Amino acid sequence: MRGREVSVFCIPMRGPGDTQGLTRLIEGGRLNPFDIVAVLGKTEGNGGVNDFTREYATWSFCAVLAPYLGLSPKEVDERIAFVMSGGTEGVLSPHITLFARKDAAVSHGGRKHLSIGIAMTRPFRPEELGRAAQVEETARAVRSAIEDAAIAAEEDVHFVQVKCPLLTAERIEDALSRGESTVTKSGYGSMAYSRGASALGVAVALGEIAGPVPDDAIAKDWSLYSSVASASAGIELMRSVVIVFGNSPATSSPYRIGHAVMKDAIDLASVSAALLNTGLDLQMMSGEADRRRIVNIFAKAEASPDGMVRGFRHTMLDDTDISATRHARAAVGGLIAGVAGHGAIYVSGGAEHQGPPGGGPIAVIAAEEP
Amino acid sequence: MRGREVSVFCIPMRGPGDTQGLTRLIEGGRLNPFDIVAVLGKTEGNGGVNDFTREYATWSFCAVLAPYLGLSPKEVDERIAFVMSGGTEGVLSPHITLFARKDAAVSHGGRKHLSIGIAMTRPFRPEELGRAAQVEETARAVRSAIEDAAIAAEEDVHFVQVKCPLLTAERIEDALSRGESTVTKSGYGSMAYSRGASALGVAVALGEIAGPVPDDAIAKDWSLYSSVASASAGIELMRSVVIVFGNSPATSSPYRIGHAVMKDAIDLASVSAALLNTGLDLQMMSGEADRRRIVNIFAKAEASPDGMVRGFRHTMLDDTDISATRHARAAVGGLIAGVAGHGAIYVSGGAEHQGPPGGGPIAVIAAEEP
Amino acid sequence: MRGREVSVFCIPMRGPGDTQGLTRLIEGGRLNPFDIVAVLGKTEGNGGVNDFTREYATWSFCAVLAPYLGLSPKEVDERIAFVMSGGTEGVLSPHITLFARKDAAVSHGGRKHLSIGIAMTRPFRPEELGRAAQVEETARAVRSAIEDAAIAAEEDVHFVQVKCPLLTAERIEDALSRGESTVTKSGYGSMAYSRGASALGVAVALGEIAGPVPDDAIAKDWSLYSSVASASAGIELMRSVVIVFGNSPATSSPYRIGHAVMKDAIDLASVSAALLNTGLDLQMMSGEADRRRIVNIFAKAEASPDGMVRGFRHTMLDDTDISATRHARAAVGGLIAGVAGHGAIYVSGGAEHQGPPGGGPIAVIAAEEP
Amino acid sequence: MRGREVSVFCIPMRGPGDTQGLTRLIEGGRLNPFDIVAVLGKTEGNGGVNDFTREYATWSFCAVLAPYLGLSPKEVDERIAFVMSGGTEGVLSPHITLFARKDAAVSHGGRKHLSIGIAMTRPFRPEELGRAAQVEETARAVRSAIEDAAIAAEEDVHFVQVKCPLLTAERIEDALSRGESTVTKSGYGSMAYSRGASALGVAVALGEIAGPVPDDAIAKDWSLYSSVASASAGIELMRSVVIVFGNSPATSSPYRIGHAVMKDAIDLASVSAALLNTGLDLQMMSGEADRRRIVNIFAKAEASPDGMVRGFRHTMLDDTDISATRHARAAVGGLIAGVAGHGAIYVSGGAEHQGPPGGGPIAVIAAEEP
Repeated sequence: MRGREVSVFCIPMRGPGDTQGLTRLIEGGRLNPFDIVAVLGKTEGNGGVNDFTREYATWSFCAVLAPYLGLSPKEVDERIAFVMSGGTEGVLSPHITLFARKDAAVSHGGRKHLSIGIAMTRPFRPEELGRAAQVEETARAVRSAIEDAAIAAEEDVHFVQVKCPLLTAERIEDALSRGESTVTKSGYGSMAYSRGASALGVAVALGEIAGPVPDDAIAKDWSLYSSVASASAGIELMRSVVIVFGNSPATSSPYRIGHAVMKDAIDLASVSAALLNTGLDLQMMSGEADRRRIVNIFAKAEASPDGMVRGFRHTMLDDTDISATRHARAAVGGLIAGVAGHGAIYVSGGAEHQGPPGGGPIAVIAAEEP
Repeated sequence: MRGREVSVFCIPMRGPGDTQGLTRLIEGGRLNPFDIVAVLGKTEGNGGVNDFTREYATWSFCAVLAPYLGLSPKEVDERIAFVMSGGTEGVLSPHITLFARKDAAVSHGGRKHLSIGIAMTRPFRPEELGRAAQVEETARAVRSAIEDAAIAAEEDVHFVQVKCPLLTAERIEDALSRGESTVTKSGYGSMAYSRGASALGVAVALGEIAGPVPDDAIAKDWSLYSSVASASAGIELMRSVVIVFGNSPATSSPYRIGHAVMKDAIDLASVSAALLNTGLDLQMMSGEADRRRIVNIFAKAEASPDGMVRGFRHTMLDDTDISATRHARAAVGGLIAGVAGHGAIYVSGGAEHQGPPGGGPIAVIAAEEP
Repeated sequence: MRGREVSVFCIPMRGPGDTQGLTRLIEGGRLNPFDIVAVLGKTEGNGGVNDFTREYATWSFCAVLAPYLGLSPKEVDERIAFVMSGGTEGVLSPHITLFARKDAAVSHGGRKHLSIGIAMTRPFRPEELGRAAQVEETARAVRSAIEDAAIAAEEDVHFVQVKCPLLTAERIEDALSRGESTVTKSGYGSMAYSRGASALGVAVALGEIAGPVPDDAIAKDWSLYSSVASASAGIELMRSVVIVFGNSPATSSPYRIGHAVMKDAIDLASVSAALLNTGLDLQMMSGEADRRRIVNIFAKAEASPDGMVRGFRHTMLDDTDISATRHARAAVGGLIAGVAGHGAIYVSGGAEHQGPPGGGPIAVIAAEEP
Repeated sequence: MRGREVSVFCIPMRGPGDTQGLTRLIEGGRLNPFDIVAVLGKTEGNGGVNDFTREYATWSFCAVLAPYLGLSPKEVDERIAFVMSGGTEGVLSPHITLFARKDAAVSHGGRKHLSIGIAMTRPFRPEELGRAAQVEETARAVRSAIEDAAIAAEEDVHFVQVKCPLLTAERIEDALSRGESTVTKSGYGSMAYSRGASALGVAVALGEIAGPVPDDAIAKDWSLYSSVASASAGIELMRSVVIVFGNSPATSSPYRIGHAVMKDAIDLASVSAALLNTGLDLQMMSGEADRRRIVNIFAKAEASPDGMVRGFRHTMLDDTDISATRHARAAVGGLIAGVAGHGAIYVSGGAEHQGPPGGGPIAVIAAEEP
């Protein structure tokens, strides 16, 4: 049967402009640059409005890939889905996870393996961010990405990453100058709205909630959420990129993906459940061999909006020195790194409508054999 | 046999000036204010040089206790050992752990229970901080506190908390004006020196290392460390307060203390070992009843000085926006809170000579019965 | 003629709990504690939601004044108007300006001198902050304070300081639990709403704008503003304190007050105009004697909401590491300190509806003789 | 007479990767890219160790110039002296000042005009930073740059910009692994040492102080300083770039440069003196036409190391939330922008040995005609 082979590479970075690991993979013949479909990175910025490490890293990778692909850097950015999530607080370690795929024969065993699909939304106008228009357009792109991944059943979708735009003072002024109003006047605040609308788009596409979602439910009605959505807002683009991860019988990769939902920021039981869902076991994690089967863990973290974690007050939302997303990434990153055995994991901040309030989805990609 | 009864209360705080929980305990007849010997708190400041939440909380408790004890607030501060550690990053929750003791008959069973002892150093001059003079005077105070706790064997000492001074621009100028030089001209940097010298004082007192320790080993030779020392630097005092925790046959409390040493910031296995050492079990932690046996967990966190955690680069030491101690507390706090089931735990930053580089001691106080 | 004598003292602070300067004034017989009516302070916190230096300083002054006045600290807080503005960024220096007044004979010269009046609002509910209810109740208190100051004409009012509440995660939850909604869910964001509503209350009371002000103009319609209002939000109270400063023929103080309005954050010409309005001259400022006539300068600073200062982009609003109010205080503080010759000036952040967008009122209190 | 024509362009940036202003100049025929010799920029990072906006901006300009110059981006970086100073706190506005020069006939009038010269040091090893080796090699490069600028007399040198390296955790480890020790183990702290050594190199080259400078005077003996040195540390290079600005009879530009030394961070009189030295007048600054003669102002800012500004305590050095360099840039930027009339000025933090303690050099480039 014709299908696709999917490869995954986890590459440490020594700075947001460090592309040496990627170059070595290509020069060493281990990676055909034409097969690359997506790059999910953690870069060492503040993860906020003025985090330029995301666009710097994206442009560095585009520039280094351009000659290999015979494209301009801008064309590389249009060909490959780059999702850079800023913020490596605490023990988190800057790195990228690179996904490649190519056509290949797939055995008829019927066993499902890691598959990946991509789609993009149209560019958004500043006044659309955080509103129903963003939800609907995102849902459309998610459905398109599921098809691209050759995933047949919605329950085989385990992680949907959306990279979405944010507002800046300049973009807000642009909307105002055209007589439009934006959902908020705060650049930092807009990141929450945009992530929230993106996650609701995933939830609608997967039938987790019924659409359409009204404007005033976004970043407000926390009972609406997706169990597999992960959204990151970035200053460097005005459209969204959607990447769907799941298991498909049409893929021949040696990896599987599983997931669970953390109910709050300290939900160790759900970290363990996500491992189990992927075929791993927390107890096994003490052995190095088993630990190495983990390719990466993808999780969303947020400060619980009611100011409490299991009945105890947290101070993340009232801290004027450090943004709540940085606090949350550091704490959840510490917990998951403790389980994974290292900090090169993808913990992304701001989990609005991504899992229940204060919690978030957690997905694990693991090799089937040690 | 005559001995002492030790009580422990863990009280959430709604702000650094919130003393209502303490007042309720006293007014409800559950705590005799004359029995209070020590208060270890986590306050919601930055934990750095200009963290005034520590002195604000101390003064608030002194002021509220003063009329009960018939003392001035300043006299209360001299009677009770207050150790406020600033920084409740991530899921950490502001709270105090209050220790009380009184004379009581102790059964002849010989079983050891939680005991506590206190001592103070003489006031230090700015130029003594981070140098041999601080190590030696701290060691003297530790020995005095062990005696006060009626702990016979050094292996029964499980946690030694030292609250030590730091340098400010003003104190550095004071030394310079007298023709003396301080160990550093950075206020923030002085906190590391002072914590380091304090921890080495504990190590010397317990025979973990051989003294005397030369000036140039402090905050430099990381092979020297204590497995039970925890030091916090604060702007509000120029002498150190030492509190020794251990198990003693001369105590009748229903609590026991145990400890382990985290080898690095993600050492989940040692968190588990500390629970075991106290008679608990990580697996049991999934049950609420067993979790409630934990009274508190005390741990030190620091950014690994070589810039790596298990072979992966961390960015804590190169971050000019957030101090490394804040990063480390957030990450280690997230890990331990995941095990403890809540964030009202005592995770303190800056573990110089407290455990191996990048790691730190972790102690658990637990009730013997659920 | 019967009138009042007003005294002003500017006292440096070595920390938010430092009350020694005040004690010395009282013990030295230079200040009768019963005459104190208001204290405006700059404390060295972040000026944001979790700036506890404001309440710590207030608490410290109340505690030290309590025995002198034969009151409890809480009663002192109700008797004297304490306004602590957090944030001494850049060259700003922590200090308080203390105002005292007592009955005295006033000569019939008719010349006007510095006068001061105080009033308080009723406590606000969380859901009232940033809305019309806050505007109206503040306006009522301003009129009452003008009367208290014995100022006859509105043009003799030169500075109106309002200390107003802010929202915290807890207060927002409180409103939600009663079925009410707050104007924002962001604690930091609520400070802008509360300051804005307070300033509009001043504008309404002085007839600078016509009332009533609708909810949706607050923190939105920047064409509405007061030229003399200064509002600071603080976590420590739920009612507002209003202090009116102006010149009155019924006062015998050796001081005068004048003001101007800075059009933007770099409006040196208006700093100069404020000096002129008070009887001083920028050119004279080079002489030490003339400089010493300045008792204090009171100014509001804010990041221009359109992201520009005189056609050049600023980055204050897009900075996730440092809040915009801290940026603005540092910059405006640098400019005014350059003119005043020192940094012990009162520059307070967040000038919503206080002067035009990006600008703010500036008032100068000066001695009539060098 | 043969000489050189010097041009200067001040170009706003909308982000650290924004090169559109430069492209427009070239495409519009106003700038020949082969004439560009130096670019001094202010980028919107934190100006600290992990400020990647500096290298991102440099990289972006190199990439856009590469095809024009027929070079690789790396070769562009070697051809043109890029000095990016991070940190646009307060009203400071991101921009670059671009200097171009070409051979041209110069009239025999003998009047001196703005001239510029460039030189580079050899690459430094981590252990050389902040020590005598860096001072000496920098002095050598300064003398070479003066010659390149065709400046005959040392008093015609008005500003010497040095871009120097800093230490990172990785570089410190590198030195340690070779058995060498670095001057400090703090990345942020190393910036002060490297800037200090660079400034002393300028002072030695210009005869402002006598060499050789011993290791232990660097960042310690503040009586040694240069009145025209400006040093910025950046993570992106391990050698230093030196740019000398002065007036030369061999130049035909329509600009002149002058300077003064700010004695402290609020020294308005010296800002005025720098204008005068360049042929401008503070009083004239109120007129727009005169203001437009200012091309740019270059100044160094730092927190006074004794913790005081004119007898009043500042809090910059004890702030664990915001680094002292950010505080100082914001304050001094506010003062100078108030005089210049806009924030697109070059205020750079960390003035160790650049002017007296707490002060710094200030240079003005102005057009001779309005």
